[in-house]
Amino acid sequence: MKFGILVPSMSQYALGVDYGTNSVRALVVDVSDGSELGTAVAEYSTGDQGVLTDPNDPNLARQDPRDYLKGFFECVPVALKEAGIDPGQIVGLGVDTTGSTPMPVDQRGVPLAFDERFQGNPDAMAWLWKDHTAHAEAAEITELANARGEPYTSKCGGTYSSEWFWSKILHCARVAPEVFAAADSWVEAQDCIPAWLCGVPDARSILRGVCAAGHKAMFHESWGGLPSVDFLSALDPRLGDLRDRLYSATRVAGDRAGGLDAEIASKVGLPSGLAVSVGAMDAHLGAVGSGVKPGTLVKIMGTSTCDIMVGDESTPDIPGVCGIVPGSVIPGMMGIEAGQSAVGDLFNWCVGKLETKGHQELADEASQLLPGESGLLALDWNNGNRTVLVDPLLTGLLVGQTLHTTEAHIYRALIEATAFGARKIIERIEEFGVTIDEVVVCGGIAEKSPLTMQIYADVCGRPMKLSRSGQTCALGAAIMGSVAGGAHGSVLQAVGAMTGAKDTVYAPEGRARATYDRLYGLYTQLHDAFGTNRELRLGGVMKELIKVRDESRKGA
Amino acid sequence: MKFGILVPSMSQYALGVDYGTNSVRALVVDVSDGSELGTAVAEYSTGDQGVLTDPNDPNLARQDPRDYLKGFFECVPVALKEAGIDPGQIVGLGVDTTGSTPMPVDQRGVPLAFDERFQGNPDAMAWLWKDHTAHAEAAEITELANARGEPYTSKCGGTYSSEWFWSKILHCARVAPEVFAAADSWVEAQDCIPAWLCGVPDARSILRGVCAAGHKAMFHESWGGLPSVDFLSALDPRLGDLRDRLYSATRVAGDRAGGLDAEIASKVGLPSGLAVSVGAMDAHLGAVGSGVKPGTLVKIMGTSTCDIMVGDESTPDIPGVCGIVPGSVIPGMMGIEAGQSAVGDLFNWCVGKLETKGHQELADEASQLLPGESGLLALDWNNGNRTVLVDPLLTGLLVGQTLHTTEAHIYRALIEATAFGARKIIERIEEFGVTIDEVVVCGGIAEKSPLTMQIYADVCGRPMKLSRSGQTCALGAAIMGSVAGGAHGSVLQAVGAMTGAKDTVYAPEGRARATYDRLYGLYTQLHDAFGTNRELRLGGVMKELIKVRDESRKGA
Repeated sequence: MKFGILVPSMSQYALGVDYGTNSVRALVVDVSDGSELGTAVAEYSTGDQGVLTDPNDPNLARQDPRDYLKGFFECVPVALKEAGIDPGQIVGLGVDTTGSTPMPVDQRGVPLAFDERFQGNPDAMAWLWKDHTAHAEAAEITELANARGEPYTSKCGGTYSSEWFWSKILHCARVAPEVFAAADSWVEAQDCIPAWLCGVPDARSILRGVCAAGHKAMFHESWGGLPSVDFLSALDPRLGDLRDRLYSATRVAGDRAGGLDAEIASKVGLPSGLAVSVGAMDAHLGAVGSGVKPGTLVKIMGTSTCDIMVGDESTPDIPGVCGIVPGSVIPGMMGIEAGQSAVGDLFNWCVGKLETKGHQELADEASQLLPGESGLLALDWNNGNRTVLVDPLLTGLLVGQTLHTTEAHIYRALIEATAFGARKIIERIEEFGVTIDEVVVCGGIAEKSPLTMQIYADVCGRPMKLSRSGQTCALGAAIMGSVAGGAHGSVLQAVGAMTGAKDTVYAPEGRARATYDRLYGLYTQLHDAFGTNRELRLGGVMKELIKVRDESRKGA
Repeated sequence: MKFGILVPSMSQYALGVDYGTNSVRALVVDVSDGSELGTAVAEYSTGDQGVLTDPNDPNLARQDPRDYLKGFFECVPVALKEAGIDPGQIVGLGVDTTGSTPMPVDQRGVPLAFDERFQGNPDAMAWLWKDHTAHAEAAEITELANARGEPYTSKCGGTYSSEWFWSKILHCARVAPEVFAAADSWVEAQDCIPAWLCGVPDARSILRGVCAAGHKAMFHESWGGLPSVDFLSALDPRLGDLRDRLYSATRVAGDRAGGLDAEIASKVGLPSGLAVSVGAMDAHLGAVGSGVKPGTLVKIMGTSTCDIMVGDESTPDIPGVCGIVPGSVIPGMMGIEAGQSAVGDLFNWCVGKLETKGHQELADEASQLLPGESGLLALDWNNGNRTVLVDPLLTGLLVGQTLHTTEAHIYRALIEATAFGARKIIERIEEFGVTIDEVVVCGGIAEKSPLTMQIYADVCGRPMKLSRSGQTCALGAAIMGSVAGGAHGSVLQAVGAMTGAKDTVYAPEGRARATYDRLYGLYTQLHDAFGTNRELRLGGVMKELIKVRDESRKGA
């Protein structure tokens, strides 16, 4: 290695900056192979782990955008130092954030949170993705779109969410008219941070990534971009006025948003003018960092699960798969997004609300059980069903309990239920002609629960691969930086070079698979009986569960 | 009162002796009004609280009949002393026991457990009601009866139980042929104790009560008493041989079994020759002690629930109501028995297997909830369904869970589920022309859980009365003693004089009742969907539960 100095180094690096709910992470990677050279995390300092809450309103969740800037200055130099590279060899920088996390900005594009008139006013802050104060407005938007026969909610499953862009802005107009009036525009965090990094001089010049626009703001070329002035004015005339101050075009991540502002660059030790990519949301860049490409389904498994694929331009609308947005994951390809509303949350509910034991103890006990041995079957709808039923008014179900049913039985049944739900998504996507060649899983559960991964493999009848990187979102952001900086000719090429899977693969086991095929048949019966309006015969469900259980125990 | 001595006392008393699973209780009552003057309990000394178990076989549960005799000598004198009455004024003695609890006896009617050849041999002991070693034999009996089209199981719902007479005897013949060969006869505890008290000289002279014979030994006049020699021989030729050594006629409780043996009488201080009633099983005499009469449904609520009524001789077969035996409760009337396989057991499962809190804490929290507020609905089938589906191959179900569902929500939903099951039984009985004018509840849950009682009142839309006596089985036995001794002309007359309800009555509350009517409609949908072969539409269940929940919370 010491002779390396004699050979001119051709190494190029990219920087990914991943803005999560509680902290921001910087990651320096080699663009040739994605190897991770340095990383650092900065916790947000405001509120409760970066989240501003209101003791009188559990729905409120805001963020002070100062934390975004402070965090950047804090983590980037540490990551660079750990990488031990020449910052001059960094070719680009990419950013991902949570979303929808919009914030009001003035004409200069500066967040109103920085305006001294609104010091400490939570309505002038960033409205964090999990803020639910706008549930009434969300219902109003859905109702109006349905009443007028507008297509706007057709790409998000027919129900607009309180977590999304327009609901939050409308709510602000109502509860904080002075903040609303002072806002020249509203900008998603994914777009605000690149704009700040590039020193964009005014709100109108901020580039908007299609990821948040298409998935959260009802932006679609087919209806002329954002919803019409007429529609928005019917919600509130002020919303109609706002519409044309927002944006009429979007860009894709990997596109160059601009060059890094000289002052910021010198402060952290990066080259001035460094290519900064258009931003995107964390789950989408997590999929990129996990190696998403045609034929690869990436499952980001945490409290909920986000399933992301890309398809070619001919990808049809897939009923029940709520987000199909051109370019939202990889430019030139159709981004396909599905999901399950509660996965880790369901396991946490089981542990936190119902049981006396922790995850580890329950998982150990559940691992001792054979497939089918619990005699239980559950529907994984404690937080509604996002895909393929797209119905928030569904709830959980558990069947098969006896007086001998234990906590571990239930814990395992809930894991199995989410696996059956995952199989439903896979089958629906393939039914519509999108082939799934491999499944790559990332996120906390993938790393922490071998039991869950094995059950998923057995239930889905497919190997479950693990994403090689433990920080896929930041890696995805760095990939976008590398493309924006010209190190790769396309995102797909960058993904091919910079991502990979771990050696550990969870392979389906024949006998378990056969048992789960039987249980999946029963799951489908319950799924269709409770999730649709079909007339069904369920008299055999309990008896078949007993039969599966008894055969499983005998075979042990 | 001190002048009472001047008036010749006309008071008459009766003694009830109640043989439970762990102890025996004696109760002295005034036959004029049922007032309880003295009581005493003797714990059994053998095994684990009177139950002989086998560490290698959790199904085994036996009892040493010595405990029955020792217990009698121990508790009767104490109860008499506490009563402070002249034993000469006692007119009769009645006995109830658990059942089916048969034991092998020799030609003299002496239990083989007393034979020194079989000292300590559990197969020569009394086979306690909850012994499940004979499950294979029970299945064999059911299958053979079905295969031959025999009517024998028609009075017990079509499935013969491992807990019953013939299963246990057949199992003994197979696993302990030497015990079986030494047995001249097999006698239920309910018949064995009166025979011993009366000094019956041989096995053939032991009177058999119709209660155990009709409910447990497939005895029915319509097919000539016990099952045919031919049928029994097909199970095992030795069983066919045994049949005609058993009995061909039965008696009802309240009939005189004989006079108290002089030696026993002198030992405990009772009159020699005192009238001893024919015995019956505890639940049936518990109903008598709770005041069962035409129009009164008695619910004995413990780990499971036993529902008992009497109807006139025209009472038809009621589908799904498994025990309809002439004279099994009150002579001359049709005994009607229904039940729920898990009630207290279901609550105990919830507390013991699933939750971190005790009954009291959960009940307190559940009491704070309004009807419908949990958003949950359960089926109470964790131990199968005894009435009205008569299907042991059913299991529990819980629907409506969200991520906010708590232990208390589930606890309350399980109580409600058993109440819905109770309402199904009431409706089925009334559908077939048996009018229910009042419901009287006894047993541990009645005393301990006001929450459960109020929910039952609201769900069933009927007042729930509590039996006045806290020892209804022993009181029922005493009532039979009073009839056998001639103090009352009939059991009904004795019941009228000697039983009553407490002042506390749980009355249905209008609004709760309306909510529960809606939930009962949903329960019926689930009940029929999972318990029958009907084709049903369940797509509205979760949404209706959410609606009921939201309305309940709003209305609060």
